[in-house]
Amino acid sequence: MALGEFDLITRYFAQLTPAGADVVLGIGDDCALLQPATGELLAVSIDTLVEGRHFAVDADAAALGHKALAVGLSDLAAMGARPAWFTLALTLPRADADWLAGFASGLGALARRHGICLVGGDTTRGPLAVSIQVHGFVPPGEALRRDGARPGDLVYVTGTLGAAGLALLVRQGLYASSEHLPELFTRLDRPEARIEAGRQSRGLVSAAIDISDGLAADLGHVCAASGVGATLYLDQLPCSPGVREYVIDTGDSQLPLSAGDDYELCLCVPGDRQAEFERVAADWPHGATWVGTIDVGGGIKVIGTDGQGVAVGAAGFDHFAAP
Amino acid sequence: MALGEFDLITRYFAQLTPAGADVVLGIGDDCALLQPATGELLAVSIDTLVEGRHFAVDADAAALGHKALAVGLSDLAAMGARPAWFTLALTLPRADADWLAGFASGLGALARRHGICLVGGDTTRGPLAVSIQVHGFVPPGEALRRDGARPGDLVYVTGTLGAAGLALLVRQGLYASSEHLPELFTRLDRPEARIEAGRQSRGLVSAAIDISDGLAADLGHVCAASGVGATLYLDQLPCSPGVREYVIDTGDSQLPLSAGDDYELCLCVPGDRQAEFERVAADWPHGATWVGTIDVGGGIKVIGTDGQGVAVGAAGFDHFAAP
Repeated sequence: MALGEFDLITRYFAQLTPAGADVVLGIGDDCALLQPATGELLAVSIDTLVEGRHFAVDADAAALGHKALAVGLSDLAAMGARPAWFTLALTLPRADADWLAGFASGLGALARRHGICLVGGDTTRGPLAVSIQVHGFVPPGEALRRDGARPGDLVYVTGTLGAAGLALLVRQGLYASSEHLPELFTRLDRPEARIEAGRQSRGLVSAAIDISDGLAADLGHVCAASGVGATLYLDQLPCSPGVREYVIDTGDSQLPLSAGDDYELCLCVPGDRQAEFERVAADWPHGATWVGTIDVGGGIKVIGTDGQGVAVGAAGFDHFAAP
Repeated sequence: MALGEFDLITRYFAQLTPAGADVVLGIGDDCALLQPATGELLAVSIDTLVEGRHFAVDADAAALGHKALAVGLSDLAAMGARPAWFTLALTLPRADADWLAGFASGLGALARRHGICLVGGDTTRGPLAVSIQVHGFVPPGEALRRDGARPGDLVYVTGTLGAAGLALLVRQGLYASSEHLPELFTRLDRPEARIEAGRQSRGLVSAAIDISDGLAADLGHVCAASGVGATLYLDQLPCSPGVREYVIDTGDSQLPLSAGDDYELCLCVPGDRQAEFERVAADWPHGATWVGTIDVGGGIKVIGTDGQGVAVGAAGFDHFAAP
């Protein structure tokens, strides 16, 4: 089924999200016109998901719609920002009505849940790829950044680690897990951005990042930006039952350290804010767990269950690393 | 040559444009943090260019960098907005240092000329595609929109029409032009957004759009949004010498009406603002030319050189039209 470009936009996306009062002009003109929040900073991030690279050729359209937005929401979470608007650049090999309806349903459901409004976009023909730019707001001076970690800060992560990476191993036929499959695939295909954890961390944390490339790699970005190092404790890493089973089963204790796509937050907490941080985090549905400490010097040290340092394997996902 | 993703971003893009005081945090964190202009509306637009669809497989990298941003700047021009920031989502089959250096040079030169700052982006591996989101500002109530045209308004276009479309015919081997080639290819490969014309049209025009799909199609969008019709006069359409030669040579007088990629502005001017508009436009380097009139009823009527109505051919570029 072939549809005209304007039909496409109108049919699937024009009514996807209710327009707030801050959307002066939404989809349909050369630009959207938006009313920025008074006295706040605008936080923006753009991410692209490419077929065969970030998702499988036969990926479920609704899950893809969800994930493409979740990745951006996670960037807003990592800054402590409140979601406001997003734009969608969708490149499609053909205009398939069923696929579009599915994609729009997954995208729209997540958008409405977070109160983020689709304000513009572009549809083009080509190899399947989705770029989404998210826009949010954060009060000046309260944004969570990568460059504020200081020696002595405590390192926490929200939720659990490694489930998305394990799900990918299962999907690739590299590992067989029985009872935990639904939870694992949900973590990979429909990640949840920790928006509330990010917002409630304002004023309590010195640095933050979302875990898209794996904890070791992403904490490494924090350390590089802050001019510090960090020590992580393997046996402190929070794992879901499926991941714990995998670690015991295979002896690969580094999966929760190096697997990407979890979209949890890594938060650095100064010692004098720890008690308050823990009080606040106790109310988060997925909690937060202490996993290590910021120290002087560069790089990430990892301490194994025997108390000895271990060599860290995969350094996170790099799209252009030499093969 | 293979480069790491973070090397890529740092090497070619981190210093591409000087950061203004309104960029609180630029490239390198989960989000950019930006200070919106006080009391103005934020105008945003995202566009994707895909290899083989919007540009040739062997397209010059510097020209592509220029054009990918020019397309977005043209959307800001069409709203009368002042350019502020842009983000870049770049999908590349490989990390080729020469290509990247060329792309960054074309992109950066245009960005610096318009004072628009690169604040964030994403690089991924995949089929070559470029998505750019532009951000600009416009005072409330002064934005140029598509939906304000009224019967009796006069229709103007900036610059000349059809050169980009003719250049594409030449490149495809469908037409041979001798002396005008450099100018034609410049119009196709390095279009110039009419930012100043857009800004100076604030308060003088009832509706505006940029001409990316061809004048007939784009004015059709204005008419649809405004609930009006329009009449265009073929012999009034401003053409460069190369296009004029083509029209005489081939008898195809509709090229300036239907060819896309010109990125001129189509502006609707109420009768009581015409004198002032013409005074202002007289100072524009590429001027503005009266080409028709807004009238009641829907659709675009085209009057030929003999004073008779002519059937309009191609209705503009539609990425997903049935073949």
